[in-house]
Amino acid sequence: MPNPPGFVSLVGAGPGDPELLTVKGLRRLQRADVVAYDRLANPVLLKECRLDAELVFVGKHGDNPLHPSVPQEAINALLIAKARAGKQVVRLKGGDPFVFGRGGEEALELVRAGVPFEVVPGVSSAVAAPAYAGIPVTHRRLSASVAIVAGHEDPLKGGSSHDWGALARVDTLVVLMGMGRLEAITAALLAGGRAPHTPAAAVRWGTTAEQRTVTGTLATIAAEVRRAGLTAPATVIVGEVVQLRDELRWFDLPF
Amino acid sequence: MPNPPGFVSLVGAGPGDPELLTVKGLRRLQRADVVAYDRLANPVLLKECRLDAELVFVGKHGDNPLHPSVPQEAINALLIAKARAGKQVVRLKGGDPFVFGRGGEEALELVRAGVPFEVVPGVSSAVAAPAYAGIPVTHRRLSASVAIVAGHEDPLKGGSSHDWGALARVDTLVVLMGMGRLEAITAALLAGGRAPHTPAAAVRWGTTAEQRTVTGTLATIAAEVRRAGLTAPATVIVGEVVQLRDELRWFDLPF
Repeated sequence: MPNPPGFVSLVGAGPGDPELLTVKGLRRLQRADVVAYDRLANPVLLKECRLDAELVFVGKHGDNPLHPSVPQEAINALLIAKARAGKQVVRLKGGDPFVFGRGGEEALELVRAGVPFEVVPGVSSAVAAPAYAGIPVTHRRLSASVAIVAGHEDPLKGGSSHDWGALARVDTLVVLMGMGRLEAITAALLAGGRAPHTPAAAVRWGTTAEQRTVTGTLATIAAEVRRAGLTAPATVIVGEVVQLRDELRWFDLPF
Repeated sequence: MPNPPGFVSLVGAGPGDPELLTVKGLRRLQRADVVAYDRLANPVLLKECRLDAELVFVGKHGDNPLHPSVPQEAINALLIAKARAGKQVVRLKGGDPFVFGRGGEEALELVRAGVPFEVVPGVSSAVAAPAYAGIPVTHRRLSASVAIVAGHEDPLKGGSSHDWGALARVDTLVVLMGMGRLEAITAALLAGGRAPHTPAAAVRWGTTAEQRTVTGTLATIAAEVRRAGLTAPATVIVGEVVQLRDELRWFDLPF
């Protein structure tokens, strides 16, 4: 008898606060036969899985999803094999699967293998980490546009695909995975014409109990981050909206 | 005896699919004394409220949150008054409160009134509507940056605060609330140097059963949308990632 058809759900685990998982993501986790998860997803979420669910760590080292410790090809092969064996598979990824999550690549492999799948979007740390730090990425009169980039490319190397001159002119810029190259990124934005006094912040482990925020300006934030000893993972925000944190920092200054 | 302290939760309802509400948002809805909601939030979510909860429609007409039918000042006053009366208040907003949701303005009013509050981020339609249409906003080799803008300003008027020349140079551009000005927006991006053959899509009622997608190029999408009779609300995506929809359209072409 053939196996019943398997299925893969590419699920965004959200930014860290486990309650920011979606209801749909929670339901998929609770029914899954197999869960392939990485380091960025809050591990407390795995407690929602069935006791007999197979949990597979396919995590990535450090701050850089371009260098997974489990090769992407092995992750793809795992998802396909489990689905072909008739399993309900959840691929649990930090944040949102399609915001620097390589979800698109996994989805393409599933399509090409004939494996049915769905995408369950998640709350991205690009928006939620600033929000928990009291920084709205858009705000009337201060910001009508927000750009999100991954910062693990070196903006001083010819290989960077970012147009930093253009990114310097978007009202709010959010940089994910940029802590390792913060000096180079801020230099590129300054060279692109962004004002040195533009407010800037770095939010480490945003939305979790470990959340810590360092603020400064575009000219000073790299030095402030170094002085504070703030390390990855962190979300960096550049733009006038950062000034709102003085009044809106609801999460780390409870009423 | 003084009232017990009230509290306001600014909750993102997500993009439309009610299961894309976060677990935290659901819990806040289920315990709320008062829920102030607008037109963009999926009304089915209100079934989660207590039977004795006070539900207040503070919705906005049409596609444009800059012209609410209930003035923003009245919404602010309502939230403050209910919280001062000791109520647990939920302000339920479509998408995410801080992504063109005016959540920052409401939060500032609450701070200044001494009302304790929190932000519960939501899944933004800027990411989820493309995802349900089979379009990852980032993808290796195709897009390493995504910009999100509100399109209800007229880019041909001097008053537009958008730097369309810069936005034209970001890999993926997502325009929310832009259907009324799609001709002008695409013209501004073309004038900004974006290639006319850049793939483009408009996703109406993304993530819901009513989802409908029209595709074309930057040069043709406005005409395609008109020909198809597609109207607001819709999310517009411009960038090479749109071509992935041909393979990844999981939601409207079920397996």
